[in-house]
Amino acid sequence: MVHPSRPPGFSWPGAPARTGSRPADIRRAVDTHLTDFLNAKTHSSALSPVPDEVPEILGQFLFHGGKRIRPLLCVNGWHAARGEGEPREVIRVAAALEMFHAFCLIHDDIMDGSDLRRGHPTLHRALAARHSTGRSPAETRRAGTNLAILVGDLALVWSDELLHSAGLSPGQLSDLLPLITTMRCEVMYGQYLDVTATGRPTSDRGHAMEIVRYKTAKYTVERPLHIGAALAGATPELLRDLTSYALPLGEAFQLRDDLLGAFSSSASTGKARTDDLRDGKHTVLLATALQRADPAQYASLHALLSAPRHTQDETDQFRRLLAATGARDRVESEIKAYRAQALHALEQIPLPSAASDALREMADAATLRIK
Amino acid sequence: MVHPSRPPGFSWPGAPARTGSRPADIRRAVDTHLTDFLNAKTHSSALSPVPDEVPEILGQFLFHGGKRIRPLLCVNGWHAARGEGEPREVIRVAAALEMFHAFCLIHDDIMDGSDLRRGHPTLHRALAARHSTGRSPAETRRAGTNLAILVGDLALVWSDELLHSAGLSPGQLSDLLPLITTMRCEVMYGQYLDVTATGRPTSDRGHAMEIVRYKTAKYTVERPLHIGAALAGATPELLRDLTSYALPLGEAFQLRDDLLGAFSSSASTGKARTDDLRDGKHTVLLATALQRADPAQYASLHALLSAPRHTQDETDQFRRLLAATGARDRVESEIKAYRAQALHALEQIPLPSAASDALREMADAATLRIK
Repeated sequence: MVHPSRPPGFSWPGAPARTGSRPADIRRAVDTHLTDFLNAKTHSSALSPVPDEVPEILGQFLFHGGKRIRPLLCVNGWHAARGEGEPREVIRVAAALEMFHAFCLIHDDIMDGSDLRRGHPTLHRALAARHSTGRSPAETRRAGTNLAILVGDLALVWSDELLHSAGLSPGQLSDLLPLITTMRCEVMYGQYLDVTATGRPTSDRGHAMEIVRYKTAKYTVERPLHIGAALAGATPELLRDLTSYALPLGEAFQLRDDLLGAFSSSASTGKARTDDLRDGKHTVLLATALQRADPAQYASLHALLSAPRHTQDETDQFRRLLAATGARDRVESEIKAYRAQALHALEQIPLPSAASDALREMADAATLRIK
Repeated sequence: MVHPSRPPGFSWPGAPARTGSRPADIRRAVDTHLTDFLNAKTHSSALSPVPDEVPEILGQFLFHGGKRIRPLLCVNGWHAARGEGEPREVIRVAAALEMFHAFCLIHDDIMDGSDLRRGHPTLHRALAARHSTGRSPAETRRAGTNLAILVGDLALVWSDELLHSAGLSPGQLSDLLPLITTMRCEVMYGQYLDVTATGRPTSDRGHAMEIVRYKTAKYTVERPLHIGAALAGATPELLRDLTSYALPLGEAFQLRDDLLGAFSSSASTGKARTDDLRDGKHTVLLATALQRADPAQYASLHALLSAPRHTQDETDQFRRLLAATGARDRVESEIKAYRAQALHALEQIPLPSAASDALREMADAATLRIK
């Protein structure tokens, strides 16, 4: 049996922790549906054969934290378009978005060679540990990676299954599918830009912002809102209005993530320290630093980027350079500006007040996170 | 622009080469639709952003050969259920199956670390070659693998898009989706069994046959037939009848593939020589050899399986052992038996004679391939 391992009242870090609050209720409903889905998968049948360990290991992955930001935005989009309550169909579509996100994270972690996710071994590391018997260390790593590619692929197929079995009418489903496909193509486009730029970071902030737009702003914020709103029959005008809130918010969210990744301890982010730096990720933060660096700072940044591993001293030196070049302050002020832009856009949209309040809270939680 | 690079009259190896024959027409129609789809993707738009190189590189991959066995079976399934002609919708669903298959092959080649596919560099190798500038050899390999994971993911999402835009009614689409999901879960289940067994081959023929059943018999033969038949409104009884033909045929097809992989030159298979042996794939052929080996033969087989690379001498020794243990003959006679079983089942099914003839031809082509 798969059990969500975090307390039912778990709240998105930074959001006010209110027992029984709407976001907590939505998260709980989504997690319950995911749990039921995975539990049904543990009874592998002829029509739906499932490798024994997969529901358990995917459940551990899903329920070791996660902010459920996409499901929350999906439900908020539904409310924004004057959908009432949280019907089962909407919760199920929201759960499908979370399952798709698990696919993204599993494949991302393989691509980044990450060891930690949400404070636990990444899926390819966990699977390697399970399949080491009779294999050399190299074969074990390869088996772990291969099985994680497959579990990711299965999560993608299962996100389709969650969608198809959400109880939508054939017409609703057929309206929703193109939007889902667009979302998937956008995140893969962003990821493709990210991978091709990785290892060759430059001072090109525009390129770094394009990655952010597709990987985060559209995928994480805009499309989940649109999908929920479309379920409630949103007009094209409302979808455009939601975009004016979603894109700057998503940009602010990713810039906050870059800062947390560079300046926080791994205990607070759940990821290994400064993975982005180690990999030479073409982030806005690094592009800004490279753009503003004087020749000596530029040379130091490049020397750090060429090192295969970083000592604590080197990590500290990198952080000092991000501060000394003014990149840290610049990105911090951009977060403020994007957040203000999102909130200003939100004020212009004629929304039910509960929906408006929820989207304002999301903006705070996404951009003010300080851990 | 993406152009199919093989001649339009290309015929499935082993099938009678008849100009203007039905299989060649079907292949051409499917390839034309895939070409149009990829050409539309080269005009990346805001709603459908696509990395520049992907349509071209995926087109090269798709049109460097391939037997189009799944699209052909899909159309044959349509005819078996008394569908008339080859309507556009059926060709488009068949094209979606081929795009899904591209996803499978791309990820398979990554998992197997294969260098060649269809006589050309595999996608991860081709992408590595394109992205080597400014990267160390290790970083180049990693970039190639990561980009190929993403191109595979995109092919999966695009196979959905091909399906959703096939012109099916919302009701037809919503009936078809569970069957598509089942097919996908089955091939991933087979692949999961394959990866967990790789590097640890045993004499367990039953386990090897289970891999064959899911990876090939159901995925390659049964489900494409079912999908085409379902489009024409097949009864559950007809679907069961088609299964009785499809599963033994798929088993024979995979056993033939194992023999070709072990005994043919790479020039004829388009793959590197004895990749299966190098990887310690748990094939029926190898399980049979291990089961039938005397102690000296068993020790020799294990010594060969432990070697990281094989010289020509070692490959020859492996082939001699497959013959000397009787494994080669046993598998050859099983192919005959499964083929006979499939043809016998086919005779019992009340089908239009053209559909029956086409399925008989497919059985010959799939099992008599001698290259």
